[in-house]
Amino acid sequence: MPMRTIDWKEGAVQIIDQTALPAELRVETIDSVEGLIAAIRSLAVRGAPALGAAGALGVALAAVLHEGDEDQVRLAAKALREARPTAVNLAWGVDRALAALGRGADAVVAEAVRALDEDGQVNRSIGRRGAELLAQLGHGQLSVLTHCNTGSLACVEWGTALGIVRELHAQGRLKRAIATETRPLLQGARLTAWELAEMGVEHALIVDSAAAWVLTQGLADVVVVGADRIAANGDVANKIGTLPIALAASHAGVPFIVAAPESTLDQSVADGAAIPIELRESAEVTSWCGQMTAPSGTPALNPAFDITPAHLVTAVVTEERVLRRG
Amino acid sequence: MPMRTIDWKEGAVQIIDQTALPAELRVETIDSVEGLIAAIRSLAVRGAPALGAAGALGVALAAVLHEGDEDQVRLAAKALREARPTAVNLAWGVDRALAALGRGADAVVAEAVRALDEDGQVNRSIGRRGAELLAQLGHGQLSVLTHCNTGSLACVEWGTALGIVRELHAQGRLKRAIATETRPLLQGARLTAWELAEMGVEHALIVDSAAAWVLTQGLADVVVVGADRIAANGDVANKIGTLPIALAASHAGVPFIVAAPESTLDQSVADGAAIPIELRESAEVTSWCGQMTAPSGTPALNPAFDITPAHLVTAVVTEERVLRRG
Repeated sequence: MPMRTIDWKEGAVQIIDQTALPAELRVETIDSVEGLIAAIRSLAVRGAPALGAAGALGVALAAVLHEGDEDQVRLAAKALREARPTAVNLAWGVDRALAALGRGADAVVAEAVRALDEDGQVNRSIGRRGAELLAQLGHGQLSVLTHCNTGSLACVEWGTALGIVRELHAQGRLKRAIATETRPLLQGARLTAWELAEMGVEHALIVDSAAAWVLTQGLADVVVVGADRIAANGDVANKIGTLPIALAASHAGVPFIVAAPESTLDQSVADGAAIPIELRESAEVTSWCGQMTAPSGTPALNPAFDITPAHLVTAVVTEERVLRRG
Repeated sequence: MPMRTIDWKEGAVQIIDQTALPAELRVETIDSVEGLIAAIRSLAVRGAPALGAAGALGVALAAVLHEGDEDQVRLAAKALREARPTAVNLAWGVDRALAALGRGADAVVAEAVRALDEDGQVNRSIGRRGAELLAQLGHGQLSVLTHCNTGSLACVEWGTALGIVRELHAQGRLKRAIATETRPLLQGARLTAWELAEMGVEHALIVDSAAAWVLTQGLADVVVVGADRIAANGDVANKIGTLPIALAASHAGVPFIVAAPESTLDQSVADGAAIPIELRESAEVTSWCGQMTAPSGTPALNPAFDITPAHLVTAVVTEERVLRRG
């Protein structure tokens, strides 16, 4: 079992710094809420389930640091909740730990740690349920196309969409995983390719815009992606570039599966149009590793997520159920 | 008028090295067919119309170097034609210059130079016809989404799809151009953003996978792209990532226009499935500027083009006509 992506260690939050991979497996210890918020904003911690864990651990950290001062803890919780707007799991983790505040700092820490333990179990359930669903798609081995990183690095451990790939591989039913590089921050190239190599899975990397070609060429039997928030009507907010893959899958007649914990379902938003989309800075698009890819001063539009309408989603797999339309 | 991207100067081929932009406007003189083929393969010369010019000038170079030895010239022509398989313009340029071979080296050079002169006129015609077509789309100023580079750098001068943008701008009818960065080689970030800045056009760069978001958000009134080959049934081979943009445009109800010279139409191939797709090396996907973006040894699939089916194309604009389906 690889180490957890995010954990509670000796009164502090320990993370694998995902901005340093694949060059370096760097472990950081964070002992302030400000430090954790900075790590969330820089994507040193990212991935919807890992953000849920970060939210819970951030409140635990605040409860320990400000023991007896509930107002300070609530202020910290508010700042944590607002660190990134699209993934609902962050707020979910914050609220879960905060609910224990009346029982003291130790209770908050215990609740946060429980949320982390459950995340692993939840993801294994998603993996098993997803692999079962995919068994209905074909008898032989499957080629799976995935986007961004939804592996153990996006969670506490195991993974959601990539957890299904992990489960298929464990069952000997995976032919090949095809991963999109996922511009601008290359989570697919840096993190998913790294996890697939660690798993010993046959894989291939593609530029994001080649996903449609892969699907029309019959090189993938199924698309499996994660989600940052799922609206009441089934619309899915996920990493920028998910919508064009869903459109291409529909065009090519390839099933499009979303894997996410129940905590990603947000009944409080009616549809995708009501989900806030985070716009990030131009520099992520116009440069790479400090080197400009575009002329100096080029303005960019940098939405971090897009909305895939429910009618393009074949099924949503959670730890509890398979949701299908109609 | 900016300098030509490719030209005949004092018995040699002069090119703007497109791998050096935007950092440097580097002009190279090429005096051998082998050197020209290497420049075509490395994409120092790229873009369908510029490849047509390169094909014609390559034969002119061979005719001068091997004057009186037609077999040598024909061998050089064959090697040039095979330097890149997808763009039909390369073979078109080779064949056009080769047809003059019976009249001596001077006649071959004259025919190649005539092809270059015509390319400029052809592109201006495409620009005017395209701008006229877009006038039917709306009365006000237009926001235009484009992919890859189809500007003066892709041609001898002026541009095809970006030539339409240039014409709209000249007419005061352009609101904003939105350019995709165009992974893996970033022709949009490096070349299109550079040309748009040179033109003084308001513009924004996006990652390729954000095009669907731009279209569903109503941020573009029309998509205009180029083509590397158009089959008899209207299927379009163009830079990888064109198909997902066409699917997103169709999904969002935004017109999808292809701009290309008549020489891009290939009646000899029935449909897109018959167009050969160039697969390029993994390193273009797994690294950038010598720096790995994925773990060492990560395999990649790197198709340079995809096929957009004719039913997703609103219209094809050439120097002579507007082709619409049905």
